Amino acid sequence: MTTIKDSVHDHIEVTGVADALLDTPPVQRLRRIHQLGTANLVYPSANHTRFEHSLGVYHLACEALDGLGEDGTRAKRTRAAALLHDVGHGPFSHTIEDLIHEHTGKYHDDVTDLLTDGDVARVLTEHGLDPERVARMVRGEGELGQVVAGELDVDRMDYLVRDAHHTGVPYGTIDHGRLVRELTIHDGELVLDEGNVQTAESLLLARALMNPTVYNHHVARISKAMLRRAAERLLEASDTTPGDLRRMDDPALQVALRECDASADFARRLDRRDLYKRAVWAEMADVTGDVFADDTVLDADDDELRDYEREIADRASVDRDAVLLDVQSRPRMRESDSRVLVNGDVRPLDEQSTLVRALQMTQREQWRLGVYAPADHTQSVGRAAVDVLGLDIDGALVTETTQSQYALDDFGEN
Amino acid sequence: MTTIKDSVHDHIEVTGVADALLDTPPVQRLRRIHQLGTANLVYPSANHTRFEHSLGVYHLACEALDGLGEDGTRAKRTRAAALLHDVGHGPFSHTIEDLIHEHTGKYHDDVTDLLTDGDVARVLTEHGLDPERVARMVRGEGELGQVVAGELDVDRMDYLVRDAHHTGVPYGTIDHGRLVRELTIHDGELVLDEGNVQTAESLLLARALMNPTVYNHHVARISKAMLRRAAERLLEASDTTPGDLRRMDDPALQVALRECDASADFARRLDRRDLYKRAVWAEMADVTGDVFADDTVLDADDDELRDYEREIADRASVDRDAVLLDVQSRPRMRESDSRVLVNGDVRPLDEQSTLVRALQMTQREQWRLGVYAPADHTQSVGRAAVDVLGLDIDGALVTETTQSQYALDDFGEN
Amino acid sequence: MTTIKDSVHDHIEVTGVADALLDTPPVQRLRRIHQLGTANLVYPSANHTRFEHSLGVYHLACEALDGLGEDGTRAKRTRAAALLHDVGHGPFSHTIEDLIHEHTGKYHDDVTDLLTDGDVARVLTEHGLDPERVARMVRGEGELGQVVAGELDVDRMDYLVRDAHHTGVPYGTIDHGRLVRELTIHDGELVLDEGNVQTAESLLLARALMNPTVYNHHVARISKAMLRRAAERLLEASDTTPGDLRRMDDPALQVALRECDASADFARRLDRRDLYKRAVWAEMADVTGDVFADDTVLDADDDELRDYEREIADRASVDRDAVLLDVQSRPRMRESDSRVLVNGDVRPLDEQSTLVRALQMTQREQWRLGVYAPADHTQSVGRAAVDVLGLDIDGALVTETTQSQYALDDFGEN
Amino acid sequence: MTTIKDSVHDHIEVTGVADALLDTPPVQRLRRIHQLGTANLVYPSANHTRFEHSLGVYHLACEALDGLGEDGTRAKRTRAAALLHDVGHGPFSHTIEDLIHEHTGKYHDDVTDLLTDGDVARVLTEHGLDPERVARMVRGEGELGQVVAGELDVDRMDYLVRDAHHTGVPYGTIDHGRLVRELTIHDGELVLDEGNVQTAESLLLARALMNPTVYNHHVARISKAMLRRAAERLLEASDTTPGDLRRMDDPALQVALRECDASADFARRLDRRDLYKRAVWAEMADVTGDVFADDTVLDADDDELRDYEREIADRASVDRDAVLLDVQSRPRMRESDSRVLVNGDVRPLDEQSTLVRALQMTQREQWRLGVYAPADHTQSVGRAAVDVLGLDIDGALVTETTQSQYALDDFGEN
Repeated sequence: MTTIKDSVHDHIEVTGVADALLDTPPVQRLRRIHQLGTANLVYPSANHTRFEHSLGVYHLACEALDGLGEDGTRAKRTRAAALLHDVGHGPFSHTIEDLIHEHTGKYHDDVTDLLTDGDVARVLTEHGLDPERVARMVRGEGELGQVVAGELDVDRMDYLVRDAHHTGVPYGTIDHGRLVRELTIHDGELVLDEGNVQTAESLLLARALMNPTVYNHHVARISKAMLRRAAERLLEASDTTPGDLRRMDDPALQVALRECDASADFARRLDRRDLYKRAVWAEMADVTGDVFADDTVLDADDDELRDYEREIADRASVDRDAVLLDVQSRPRMRESDSRVLVNGDVRPLDEQSTLVRALQMTQREQWRLGVYAPADHTQSVGRAAVDVLGLDIDGALVTETTQSQYALDDFGEN
Repeated sequence: MTTIKDSVHDHIEVTGVADALLDTPPVQRLRRIHQLGTANLVYPSANHTRFEHSLGVYHLACEALDGLGEDGTRAKRTRAAALLHDVGHGPFSHTIEDLIHEHTGKYHDDVTDLLTDGDVARVLTEHGLDPERVARMVRGEGELGQVVAGELDVDRMDYLVRDAHHTGVPYGTIDHGRLVRELTIHDGELVLDEGNVQTAESLLLARALMNPTVYNHHVARISKAMLRRAAERLLEASDTTPGDLRRMDDPALQVALRECDASADFARRLDRRDLYKRAVWAEMADVTGDVFADDTVLDADDDELRDYEREIADRASVDRDAVLLDVQSRPRMRESDSRVLVNGDVRPLDEQSTLVRALQMTQREQWRLGVYAPADHTQSVGRAAVDVLGLDIDGALVTETTQSQYALDDFGEN
Repeated sequence: MTTIKDSVHDHIEVTGVADALLDTPPVQRLRRIHQLGTANLVYPSANHTRFEHSLGVYHLACEALDGLGEDGTRAKRTRAAALLHDVGHGPFSHTIEDLIHEHTGKYHDDVTDLLTDGDVARVLTEHGLDPERVARMVRGEGELGQVVAGELDVDRMDYLVRDAHHTGVPYGTIDHGRLVRELTIHDGELVLDEGNVQTAESLLLARALMNPTVYNHHVARISKAMLRRAAERLLEASDTTPGDLRRMDDPALQVALRECDASADFARRLDRRDLYKRAVWAEMADVTGDVFADDTVLDADDDELRDYEREIADRASVDRDAVLLDVQSRPRMRESDSRVLVNGDVRPLDEQSTLVRALQMTQREQWRLGVYAPADHTQSVGRAAVDVLGLDIDGALVTETTQSQYALDDFGEN
Repeated sequence: MTTIKDSVHDHIEVTGVADALLDTPPVQRLRRIHQLGTANLVYPSANHTRFEHSLGVYHLACEALDGLGEDGTRAKRTRAAALLHDVGHGPFSHTIEDLIHEHTGKYHDDVTDLLTDGDVARVLTEHGLDPERVARMVRGEGELGQVVAGELDVDRMDYLVRDAHHTGVPYGTIDHGRLVRELTIHDGELVLDEGNVQTAESLLLARALMNPTVYNHHVARISKAMLRRAAERLLEASDTTPGDLRRMDDPALQVALRECDASADFARRLDRRDLYKRAVWAEMADVTGDVFADDTVLDADDDELRDYEREIADRASVDRDAVLLDVQSRPRMRESDSRVLVNGDVRPLDEQSTLVRALQMTQREQWRLGVYAPADHTQSVGRAAVDVLGLDIDGALVTETTQSQYALDDFGEN
């Protein structure tokens, strides 16, 4: 057994297969992957890593399994999956996940290749676990898989509290002790026990407040777009393959970007926090042109986006890399599918809760389309983007006046 | 200057008129008034007092005034009002406020008589402040009065954080540092500065989650109803006048209730935590009979309620004091009138925020009508109440099964 | 099982005999006993009670027993003793413990009469426990009794952290999670496992810093002396017996003191925080006269002290109640007898640790003899005390200059 | 003005010259320097950086200056020095500071060349500050320089609290709010005001407990020794100059070590946490041979140490890089020179405090000489080291039994 001191959960006791997995390279690599990607450019204390988060998820999974009375091979598999659930992350966590997916077809929770090979496979097998089944659990399959990756998973419970602890933004401070205690399995589904509509609401509300303040803070989005573009240039201009990129850690990517001519300028800007600024910051209602039907915009594939960027850059007479178009994916809120027991029946949370339905609408309201450019080109790029994308000019364009309109987003450094 | 160590705000520096007011009997009395009345019967650590809360409100008022750039007599008056804002509370804070109001016509923020007399009046006058004007500020009058008592007042900011700290329920953990910084005055109104729709939402959400979990927890409501009835009996059966009652502190009331025959049984039950149980716990939709039209029920005056109680007791063949009818007042949410600056215009928060409108509806959903009785009479009293009040029997009656349905409310001891 | 939310340990699960004991009157009474007596007159947030502390001690005892692998009747008895360990406290905890002992021969850990009678005895017996043996465990007897009351007991671990949480003074923030984990039994003795010299030191250092800052803060000592004198007068002038006094709760004593003429003035002063001030504050070295040989002073019995007070009052021509002589008992530090395993041998901590030996000396340095009087009599009383007690006048007398010398003690309100 | 959210001090307002300095490359670089070097291999949450620490030091410096009533150019210079005080750190903070000093003659507080050049120099000059004088202040020169770097500096106050927050080890939780308030200048010296002997003691005790638990944890020392040796090999085997090394950030060094054959093995071990183990862990008393006279050992220069390592490796027949000799420098405790006002005189703290004198002795007791080797060579290397260095074999050799003797050090992962 190893006892590890954690800044969030105090002492975490790691035993059995999890203890053996701790020392494998894919798990140790997580020490060098920032949990929140580039969000430390907004919240300087947010330097926590996927490693400590994975320990926290493991810890909460153990508590949840205790509460569920699970104690056999299934439980052991769940504990392994909890510790391993994030080994599939590329450098800077979600920051370049789309890019990696575009080139490799893998999202971060597609870990079959990583678990069925090398030390991890060996350790799992030695402890009587089938790596393939652990990998399926990481994707949320199976009854207990929902503990690891589902609407009410311990992943979310850990990261909300941990991100609050490290950013200093208190909104994520949920009552994880209670949530974990109230999990129960009903007809094969992981649900919250009777009388927990509000417990479930509190989890969703915490995320709804953390989203714009932390996860989608405009500076986090701008730096993410810059890092993504830099990594794209690296793939084009160097020997680095998408497979290499996926397995790099943060330092490796940082140095690779600095050393490749095509990405060096972005790297230098990121290192110096000399970031692009918003030229456009448009609500859904501002996307008025027929170029983008509502649904199209959200599902625009990368090629289309690159075309728009090029068109905007040309019209504004700036370099292609001086325009970054950032279209958030369609708002979805998996947790609103959370299920709670009400009078003995399993009910979807959004049927039970006015607040949760309002949160779904709120998410649409918080959606923003961004176009970013170097500080001295925001005006020309903004105007060009309004034309090319068919946006409502008053709502979308970020002028000096409307910049100040977004004080919330500007919080932290900017 | 006095520097005081506070468990929430660390060091609080009390200067000038506030420092002089600290030593007056009405302020020192607040040390013996529990901030949350009888909620420590649910959350045992919730023993904090109106005194430390008043210091916290004073502290946040000073920060808000700094942010607003206020520094003259108006500011001094505001600081005095902040420290004094709760001196009008009777014993156990809001617990018997209605009873005191019924008999004296005064709510806790009606403090003119307390500020214009004795040491407090002397200190205020010596520091060049008019006690009457300070009393008006405690009621929220005037531009800066809104800092002390308004939709966005520092009172709420302190109590949410403080109640979270002492109950252990994290939902109240708001970002008070940010809220205080973002206050601004626009056309004579206290509003939140541009870009703070979400900051305002977070304040309302915190309260919406604390309400059912802490402030309206059913055990808190039951003990409140018991204490209220006991105090009523004390007024009827002893020399204690309503005016005496209003100025008692918690120990004085506790002992008085023990020593008066008419209230001794309630006192003993409260001391031993041998509380009444719910016989009825009805949502608004369960109140189907025509006895109570929706609006009537909410405004039912005390005489009416006493009549219903008597009728229920008679029908159930139990003693009159074995039935407590607890009708919550109409849900209102003053903070939803909070105002925020959006593009230079002052807008009501509920116009701007889908979430806030949902919160208003949620509050109606959380409304409950309770009928409480000794444990061995809940069944008979419950059935009688259903008949007398015209309730939907399936929804309203608290049977053993539906007790467990309210696990959330049962949290803490029960 | 009852799950209780605690502000320090979050969720505490109370099961079995402890759950049944929760509802007994002697345990519920602890809700109305302030953990730190009158220390809230220095630290306004310090309103926590013996009840929540008892829950915390129970919680840590359960963790310690888990770590020790104890799980039978002995463990059950330990859990009961942990929850009950403080039922013997009189009102305001240690404040009038000496007075109660003088009259009843009982200290707070002498609980045999309380456990062998009434509900507590019934519950213990029903759960197969012998009340007498539980009472012996509360006094620290037996191997596991040391968990409840010994040099390394969970009592101390809880109160240091809890007092830090509620006063806001961080010095008590120990690593209780680690201490509890490292307890082990070696040859029938409770000791800290190998490599924990420093863990043990940290516990003692925390107490050494909390002592002068919180527990022996001069304002806490003054208010304690006033309350003690008031209770003495109550015993002399009313029907209240020492036995009654021992079983009162805080509100009962507060009101009794107000209502008895002989104690009313002290009660009013305490309510208004209109406290006596230091006339003398003498280090051990200042006690130069031969009236008090060093050892005598520490063991002076109450009659002697009363004689000195009378003599001082006469010489200063003030009323007898205007002089309070406060002689701290001989410094002792039970924890320095803590034992740790070093290379497989049990060793006393003070043999192993230079720091612990220094702490013992430091405690002597922190010792103070106090003489307190109403603010307008401190000068005359001070001079009279110097004469009567044979003190070094320069060191002992508290003049305006030397008042400021004690800024540390003055911290908090004064 | 920029408002930055910090996980320790909440909102930090950065104004004037400090705001302008924020955006300079040397300050932004600190985002990529781990505050505690490799201590995150022991405490996984300890990923905080010199950047957030620098903000904290700036924040506390502002509070200290307010308390001292300082508000002119001197204060502005102090604020600049506070923000800049750590720009001289090489990668991984203190980890390879000795190596850099050996080759460049510069410790981390020798920043003249960094402040008198480039953006920093420009910003300082634009704000009317002389870069040379700011650099001198970073070294602690001048009256206010002691606020930045002295016995009672705000540097220490911030890092203790911050390291506690991020490691989860509570020992560093000092009352920084009080310390900063009690600073005063007396005859040109920064001292703690009257009555603060204990406040000063608490700062030293916090460090005394953090030292062995965090800063000198044996795993932190082993990984530091490994990183240092790797960097040495990098200097020998690559084009990297000592000057380059000094200005690298953590990712740059990590990648450079991986890419250089001479250091790649160490880099891989560090990445995988496949660390060397202790072969010898000797107290000062165990260093019995005449090779090392007590004082010599402490001042042994690097060449001597390398000679010993070679000799040990040869005798044990292992590769030279399989032996790391780690000799801590002479214990010193600058804070024990802290000065406090006692009765109007400035007195050195160690004269006033028994505890502080004990701490000095304790530091000698905590001193350890370590010899580290790959796990499968610890026995042979240990025996060889005992011979070569003339150590007491029973005390110094780390066998399986005595490994467990150091449970404290083993805490965290090992």
